[in-house]
Amino acid sequence: MSESIPLSLSDVHALASATLRANGISDEQSQALADTVTAAERDGCKSHGLFRIPAYVQSARNGLVNPVAVPSVHDLAPGVIQVDAHNGFAPLALRVGREPLVEKTTSQGIAALGLINSCHIAALWPEVEALAERGLVAFAFVTAASYVAPAGGTKPLFGTNPMAFAWPRPDGKPPLVFDQASSASARGEIMLHQRDGKPLPEGWAIDADGQPTTDPAAALAGAQLPFGGYKGAAIALMVELLAGALIGGPFSFEVSQMDKKDGSLPPRGEFIITIDPGHCVSADNKTAQLAHAEALFSRMLEQPGTRLPADRRYQMRQITPTEGITIPRTLFEQIKNLQQV
Amino acid sequence: MSESIPLSLSDVHALASATLRANGISDEQSQALADTVTAAERDGCKSHGLFRIPAYVQSARNGLVNPVAVPSVHDLAPGVIQVDAHNGFAPLALRVGREPLVEKTTSQGIAALGLINSCHIAALWPEVEALAERGLVAFAFVTAASYVAPAGGTKPLFGTNPMAFAWPRPDGKPPLVFDQASSASARGEIMLHQRDGKPLPEGWAIDADGQPTTDPAAALAGAQLPFGGYKGAAIALMVELLAGALIGGPFSFEVSQMDKKDGSLPPRGEFIITIDPGHCVSADNKTAQLAHAEALFSRMLEQPGTRLPADRRYQMRQITPTEGITIPRTLFEQIKNLQQV
Repeated sequence: MSESIPLSLSDVHALASATLRANGISDEQSQALADTVTAAERDGCKSHGLFRIPAYVQSARNGLVNPVAVPSVHDLAPGVIQVDAHNGFAPLALRVGREPLVEKTTSQGIAALGLINSCHIAALWPEVEALAERGLVAFAFVTAASYVAPAGGTKPLFGTNPMAFAWPRPDGKPPLVFDQASSASARGEIMLHQRDGKPLPEGWAIDADGQPTTDPAAALAGAQLPFGGYKGAAIALMVELLAGALIGGPFSFEVSQMDKKDGSLPPRGEFIITIDPGHCVSADNKTAQLAHAEALFSRMLEQPGTRLPADRRYQMRQITPTEGITIPRTLFEQIKNLQQV
Repeated sequence: MSESIPLSLSDVHALASATLRANGISDEQSQALADTVTAAERDGCKSHGLFRIPAYVQSARNGLVNPVAVPSVHDLAPGVIQVDAHNGFAPLALRVGREPLVEKTTSQGIAALGLINSCHIAALWPEVEALAERGLVAFAFVTAASYVAPAGGTKPLFGTNPMAFAWPRPDGKPPLVFDQASSASARGEIMLHQRDGKPLPEGWAIDADGQPTTDPAAALAGAQLPFGGYKGAAIALMVELLAGALIGGPFSFEVSQMDKKDGSLPPRGEFIITIDPGHCVSADNKTAQLAHAEALFSRMLEQPGTRLPADRRYQMRQITPTEGITIPRTLFEQIKNLQQV
């Protein structure tokens, strides 16, 4: 029997959607989640693809998430909106907040969105990419649970706390996007190594005694390390403050205190900043600003071995809509089983 | 003869100010520069202290900088201002822009400042610290010259491109601040190693052939490396876009094209974002937001070996106002000689 199952992107969407709906997750929430899961599989971003469906289902089943929540948007200041996900999943809440955020940004020049009470397991890049597709520069920051040791420490405190950034590109090119954990690796990458029985690279983690480890299980029980030493740790701390104290969200260690240790993740905060380039120069000349950026990218790509941050995802995106993707049979069966409620 | 010269902080300020004025730099520009140089010496931040005076003087002498420039402030959008330094030094331009930026931020919730045509050799932390002293969250980003290789590349392209962040603290505590190069080391640190004849740590730089080096001269002729591999390089790229294309400033490689290779640095851009925490929650409760952050800091500092990012500077700040500082005799004499125009 084959170890992997081939799926078209429509199959992915249908499988995700049916499984989520079967578990009482509303049509709107399921649609938004299935869209982000499908986008991840389309881009070869396995750790945020169908692999995450069990956690979504578990979060809905154990009551940490409200599967029928309807997000609400609140105007906090001329440049700030809040989206309250009311303990629902992030993707629908972000979708609901996007248009008000774009409107504020194009009128004010810069704006921010604080997303609170949201169950956030998806990647950040789909949101910043969508905002950059609207011509904006976008940043996003999200906490996680207590996984990463602070600089000089040995016990988990910070989340993997990704920071994402997107810059719009002209002529129909997809935006320049990066979405990177402030830890040496994403949590999902360690989980994939564990699933596949592979050792971790050096420098990713320490065990529960604070000693370096390459064992995924020991790493998950110990602490992940920040990327780049104290500088990555400073970014992790910044993300805690932005997606936590600033917008009234929990810190990663507070998320962990609420954690039911069953693969789900309690609701938390995300912070987004968007900037309209046209308002950042004295004569609005967005064409020239974007052309200037293209000159930098060209200069960089002249050097052999370089690439733009999201290029691997965009390359996969050229292939998977026609060729489809594969997932491990075990995962496929696990998801199918979750449809039996 | 002693190799070092003791100076009080007033001596530092007077020495800096007299040397700058003797070279035709206006009283206002000299005052702002001497303030930042003195703040750096006060905090033990040697690479931005009196060590930088020769570069300031050289920049004024060779005509890259206008030593009598008067910065102007322009309102670009409800949330965005531009400060044009008119080829003067950054510290005065930032001082002139600060009040308008604070006003915009407290009314809009979030605001941005694009500083253009500024000769920027100072650290970023004095500005974000000053903004956080006003109760705001602040980010700052600045390009440099072409020093750092992109991920996968071997030739300099990006600047050392520091990113700074500050968070206000209650009860008269100085703000939480970090100011970190997106390279493995600051340029100034390599220059200090060269001056002192010390080898560089591994991982800081490659030579002109793209090979790892610990020789400061080979590093300065080759390329610095980003911190944390491709993630630090992504941050360097982000800084180029924010302080360059977004606000109409030059990229680091364009700064290098204008460089006269005499220790001065051509004018460039800086980008600042400020956020008023009170506008980021539905009921303005800044006391609770800041108290929440303090709980995170306490939790972190419970772990032996941890510290808050700016703590070493703040510790020096307790000592130097009474005990003074020292600088190498060679530097002291170099600066004194610069007073002979």
